[in-house]
Amino acid sequence: MNPDLKAERAGASFDPKALTPHLYGGQARLERFNAVRRLIEEDPVFRVDDYYFASREERYTRAMEKTSRLVQLVKQHNLSEEESIVMRLCIREQLPLGLHWVMFIPAIKGQGTPEQQKKWLPLAQSLRIVGTYAQTEMGHGTFLRGLETTATYDPATKQFVLHMSDHGPHAFIVQIRDLDSHKPLPGVSVGDIGPKLGYDSMDNGFLKLDHVRIPRDQMLMKFAQDPKPSPVWIHVWSPERPDDFAQVSESGAYTRPPNTKLSYGTMIYVRSVMISDAARHLQAATTIAIRYGVVRRQSLLEETASKETQVLDYNSSQQQLFPLLGWAYACHFAGQHLIKMYQDLQASLNRADLSMLEYVHGTTTGLKALVTTIASEGLETCRKACGGHGYSRFSGLPDFYQDYVPACTYEGENNVMKLQCARYLVKCFRQAAKGRNLAPEMSYIGQATKPSHTSKPLNLDGPDAWLHWKIQSRVLEAKACLSLAAAVRELDRQLGSTSKGKAWNNAAEPLSAAALEHSQVVMLRLLEGGIATPSIADTARRALESLRSLLALKLIQAQAPALQLANLLSAMDVQHLSTAVTKLLAVVRRDAVALVDAFDLSDHFLNSALGRYDGQVYEALYAAAQKSTLNATPVTRAVQEHLQPLMKFSRAMLGMPKL
Amino acid sequence: MNPDLKAERAGASFDPKALTPHLYGGQARLERFNAVRRLIEEDPVFRVDDYYFASREERYTRAMEKTSRLVQLVKQHNLSEEESIVMRLCIREQLPLGLHWVMFIPAIKGQGTPEQQKKWLPLAQSLRIVGTYAQTEMGHGTFLRGLETTATYDPATKQFVLHMSDHGPHAFIVQIRDLDSHKPLPGVSVGDIGPKLGYDSMDNGFLKLDHVRIPRDQMLMKFAQDPKPSPVWIHVWSPERPDDFAQVSESGAYTRPPNTKLSYGTMIYVRSVMISDAARHLQAATTIAIRYGVVRRQSLLEETASKETQVLDYNSSQQQLFPLLGWAYACHFAGQHLIKMYQDLQASLNRADLSMLEYVHGTTTGLKALVTTIASEGLETCRKACGGHGYSRFSGLPDFYQDYVPACTYEGENNVMKLQCARYLVKCFRQAAKGRNLAPEMSYIGQATKPSHTSKPLNLDGPDAWLHWKIQSRVLEAKACLSLAAAVRELDRQLGSTSKGKAWNNAAEPLSAAALEHSQVVMLRLLEGGIATPSIADTARRALESLRSLLALKLIQAQAPALQLANLLSAMDVQHLSTAVTKLLAVVRRDAVALVDAFDLSDHFLNSALGRYDGQVYEALYAAAQKSTLNATPVTRAVQEHLQPLMKFSRAMLGMPKL
Ligand SMILES: Cc1cc2nc3c(=O)[nH]c(=O)nc-3n(C[C@H](O)[C@H](O)[C@H](O)COP(=O)(O)OP(=O)(O)OC[C@H]3O[C@@H](n4cnc5c(N)ncnc54)[C@H](O)[C@@H]3O)c2cc1C
Ligand SMILES: Cc1cc2nc3c(=O)[nH]c(=O)nc-3n(C[C@H](O)[C@H](O)[C@H](O)COP(=O)(O)OP(=O)(O)OC[C@H]3O[C@@H](n4cnc5c(N)ncnc54)[C@H](O)[C@@H]3O)c2cc1C
Repeated sequence: MNPDLKAERAGASFDPKALTPHLYGGQARLERFNAVRRLIEEDPVFRVDDYYFASREERYTRAMEKTSRLVQLVKQHNLSEEESIVMRLCIREQLPLGLHWVMFIPAIKGQGTPEQQKKWLPLAQSLRIVGTYAQTEMGHGTFLRGLETTATYDPATKQFVLHMSDHGPHAFIVQIRDLDSHKPLPGVSVGDIGPKLGYDSMDNGFLKLDHVRIPRDQMLMKFAQDPKPSPVWIHVWSPERPDDFAQVSESGAYTRPPNTKLSYGTMIYVRSVMISDAARHLQAATTIAIRYGVVRRQSLLEETASKETQVLDYNSSQQQLFPLLGWAYACHFAGQHLIKMYQDLQASLNRADLSMLEYVHGTTTGLKALVTTIASEGLETCRKACGGHGYSRFSGLPDFYQDYVPACTYEGENNVMKLQCARYLVKCFRQAAKGRNLAPEMSYIGQATKPSHTSKPLNLDGPDAWLHWKIQSRVLEAKACLSLAAAVRELDRQLGSTSKGKAWNNAAEPLSAAALEHSQVVMLRLLEGGIATPSIADTARRALESLRSLLALKLIQAQAPALQLANLLSAMDVQHLSTAVTKLLAVVRRDAVALVDAFDLSDHFLNSALGRYDGQVYEALYAAAQKSTLNATPVTRAVQEHLQPLMKFSRAMLGMPKL
Repeated sequence: MNPDLKAERAGASFDPKALTPHLYGGQARLERFNAVRRLIEEDPVFRVDDYYFASREERYTRAMEKTSRLVQLVKQHNLSEEESIVMRLCIREQLPLGLHWVMFIPAIKGQGTPEQQKKWLPLAQSLRIVGTYAQTEMGHGTFLRGLETTATYDPATKQFVLHMSDHGPHAFIVQIRDLDSHKPLPGVSVGDIGPKLGYDSMDNGFLKLDHVRIPRDQMLMKFAQDPKPSPVWIHVWSPERPDDFAQVSESGAYTRPPNTKLSYGTMIYVRSVMISDAARHLQAATTIAIRYGVVRRQSLLEETASKETQVLDYNSSQQQLFPLLGWAYACHFAGQHLIKMYQDLQASLNRADLSMLEYVHGTTTGLKALVTTIASEGLETCRKACGGHGYSRFSGLPDFYQDYVPACTYEGENNVMKLQCARYLVKCFRQAAKGRNLAPEMSYIGQATKPSHTSKPLNLDGPDAWLHWKIQSRVLEAKACLSLAAAVRELDRQLGSTSKGKAWNNAAEPLSAAALEHSQVVMLRLLEGGIATPSIADTARRALESLRSLLALKLIQAQAPALQLANLLSAMDVQHLSTAVTKLLAVVRRDAVALVDAFDLSDHFLNSALGRYDGQVYEALYAAAQKSTLNATPVTRAVQEHLQPLMKFSRAMLGMPKL
């Protein structure tokens, strides 16, 4: 064990091992998860020592091998659905069958009639068939209404010809490969789209259908049999929803679904998964950067010091890493909360109660954009905080970034998501202005409609007053209201002089800002809610509260001039704020290693020379480098073929002195 | 030609072809560069169609092949030094011999005695030997004084034993490989450090020296022969400078160099190259994102529109891309200016005039941090602006990012650079407070020392008043002063209660912010200076002025609350500012394609399906995908080996209905 890391662990104010179970739903669940994790980590198929040296083809092939082994293990150990999901999460790789599990099967469950489910689900679940989810076209991703692939129903043959329709997007099950040879069927062109920034282990594909015919009952049309459909989980790549519940009769009559919003409920699940994914990535990256930050010593903070400074002691490292650590916890708790919210929503929708729908939909669009942005940018911040060694793939950080960052684009492109959230906020604002009641979570928006001259500064009596959640949440809300009021002002100004579409477009920037501000309020509430879990020991809670305070105060500090200008903070409040932040950095510094240790991510999962639990970073880096494929021979092929002839020619021509 | 792109070109307010020569030093120079470019682009060795499909080994081998061909072409066409540099820049790849040219040779030139230069330069220039630059150790990059490799002089043998010294870093020429076999010599362990986030074509190496002996005259010690050394270009990886000009006599006596700051001059050259590099990358990325932005249509801005909207018409795209286009031009002009500044500095140092040194050094540290941050983050912004297709390597953008982003780390880690710049700024502030004169470029800092209650708002009489450079530069300067004054206030507050080291560390955040603000002032001045080049046609100049105004106003807008709070802007000024920005977005929108066309980057260099001059993006994406190695066979090996057995087993066990 590296002595610096050991000292950090000895000096922490709480025991991370006591916190871990509360992050994963209690001791019993944690133990079950750990047992599953061991199955993976002790199996040679899942070894990670070849991970950084594999070509794309090898990565893909190994990922397929892992997938196949995973399926065997699930069967062999009779694992539950939940355990098999945990198992997949232990494998730090996009699995080529991922879409089969998270999109194809759920789409059949969510949109198929009972007959369709009966036919297709057993085939898919037993892997007798393997499916994907092909919605985006080259020309259309965000704008689903613009999709150009069409399906024409031919009543004579009771078939769809995948070629032409104008009813908006629908979901079909289309066989594209031969069951025996696995070769594409006639009329189907299918292949890999080529290398990407990340996702090397995935063969994301293109698909072209040329008058491909499928039977009528391969259009998913749950609504035909089930007039009051319960909205269900289905993975959707876009803010615009396909008409999941439309139907086409045998004679070819088309029926629109009763309420397209019903399927909104299902997106919440996907978003909760995405937020948990952000959490996992941020946890990994902060674990690596913070452990390395106490092992790495560089430069002298005081000229007279006898030892170089641990880089985590530099204020710039702390300012960058500690808020990200706060976000890692916030995303963790938020992901868990959203699952509950999804279940509540399902229940209320099944009672035909749509009251929650708007809040949940309006808010999760903003959360998706905020969280994926913070996590992806945060991964690069953590990488850079490791200096030159962060650029090595052995640090683990490049791969985390490359595989995570597309989350900013899929499941609703972030610019589009922010604007959707803003639409909801503006609607709330207008309702509040008319004196209507808002969902309880949104009632704070009422402030935004009050005239600004009535505001009074906090006038706190010292830096410590800033440590109270009540104060923090009040200012965070005030800040979001300030931003929303400004956005509405700009929107109204634009509406006064141009068309509706242009006005919204011209006001996009303040509207997007308001969406992010609201999302911050929600995330910080969820963080606070998570910390308040009664079972968490007081020592750990205090450490988490300091982390939350730091994050909240940094967010407030970023808008301090605007808050002061709006007479919500006094100059003295801002001064106290700055003092409180400096104090909190030192408090969080003490527990930084314990706070990442509590995530309990394994060395196998991190696969990082810098983030190892034992802190033996230089040994690990050096050992890993020895395995580089370019070191297989003392002189590379490139040098032999191209450099040596050039040098030898030059020496022969010009002569060579003895060195 | 894509019709949308054609229409954009027809509608531009100026002719990009008339602007291009002024960016590259006139028509004659441009033509020479184009001739060199053709040599590369017409040579099959430099074809780029295999670029995205190659493994790391293949990338490295191909890059070596290209290097070898480049050397032949330079010889064959008798190209000048400048032309051969241009030739290297036409190859969008880190070349394995890059360090030989930009570090090894310059180090000998800069630090070697005349004898050493006479011996080593011809060998290196003719590639009879090939060198690298090995300074950073596993444990030390930023903090050079902490380096652990040592060199002990053994007067008996007149050799250095690379093992132990305490005089600070020095430069040695050490032969590490055998001239014939190219194998490492005894005592030398050398190899590739393994895969990185980018730089696939480079074998960045590790090196271990075990009591390796070299003759005394392989320590570079120019100063021994040349008591008034002229500071020269030498690539250095760190803000802390090696003692380039120290010497060790035959008997082993060590002499310190007269003024370690003399070698500072040389860093400026490196920084100018880095800023030009930022320019080239931003030019490429904005070219791709802006051309794609007019070809890509997605969603309806107005519900009633008959055609989908070009994504460049979305405000969020414009807000993100147009400032980056402004930075691309700013970096371009700044890079050119810094070369001149370097030459002036050289000349003044040769006259033993050190007056420029501090300003140039203090300012370029901040520029390095600002520019590499904006460029690297900007590359990702451009990529995301292309939606899902930006994630494909065929977009060109992933590779630009992966190869560019280490610039934030090497040549002085950015956090460290910002703090160095801040040190200089604080010094200027203190001098100004004492009424001393500052370098003319810094005299604006004087404002920062004035009491804030004396400030008066601009009170502009309308949005158009914001379009004047005088107003913009005045507010940019005021903004930088505001930030510096706040940083000094915080620093002084800290100095009142803690040690010097801790005080600077605790105040790191406002200090770093002040450094960036100052750097913005300098960059915008250089942009304005470049635009003012008399030879540029008025139509093009007007377009560039709008771009500059947009960039300046966006920077000001980001700090509007602070400026208003400080009574430097009135509420009405801020309102006008917002109106001016909206107007400018539309003006820049019209010329966006012309402004990127003027960079004249070739399709060969961009190697981007999305950024093609002809806008045939979907055809190019589809064609490129066909070449994916995973498409070589209709069924991949991974599927055959791992998926098919699983599926077949399952079907055999459970039966398979006819589909
Ligand atoms: C790794 C990865 C995996 C994927 N997997 C799948 C899959 O399995 N199945 C599938 O069907 N799809 C998949 N997708 C596609 C994904 O769903 C789309 O890329 C995504 O929906 C974004 O749409 P787009 O690519 O059309 O972007 P575009 O909408 O073209 O975005 C381009 C630009 O236009 C802007 N823009 C577009 N519309 C608006 C608007 N209304 N207002 C303001 N700005 C706008 C965006 O902000 C962006 O800057 C995947 C994508 C990735 C990156
Ligand atoms: C692609 C690439 C190519 C390279 N090529 C070469 C080469 O050819 N030859 C060579 O010799 N080197 C090379 N380097 C190494 C490079 O010079 C170093 O990585 C760089 O100087 C940063 O130093 P470091 O890695 O020690 O980072 P560290 O200094 O360890 O940085 C780690 C963290 O500590 C912080 N930190 C460190 N000191 C301070 C301080 N005083 N104040 C505040 N914060 C601090 C940093 O901000 C950072 O967050 C290369 C690096 C890369 C990425």
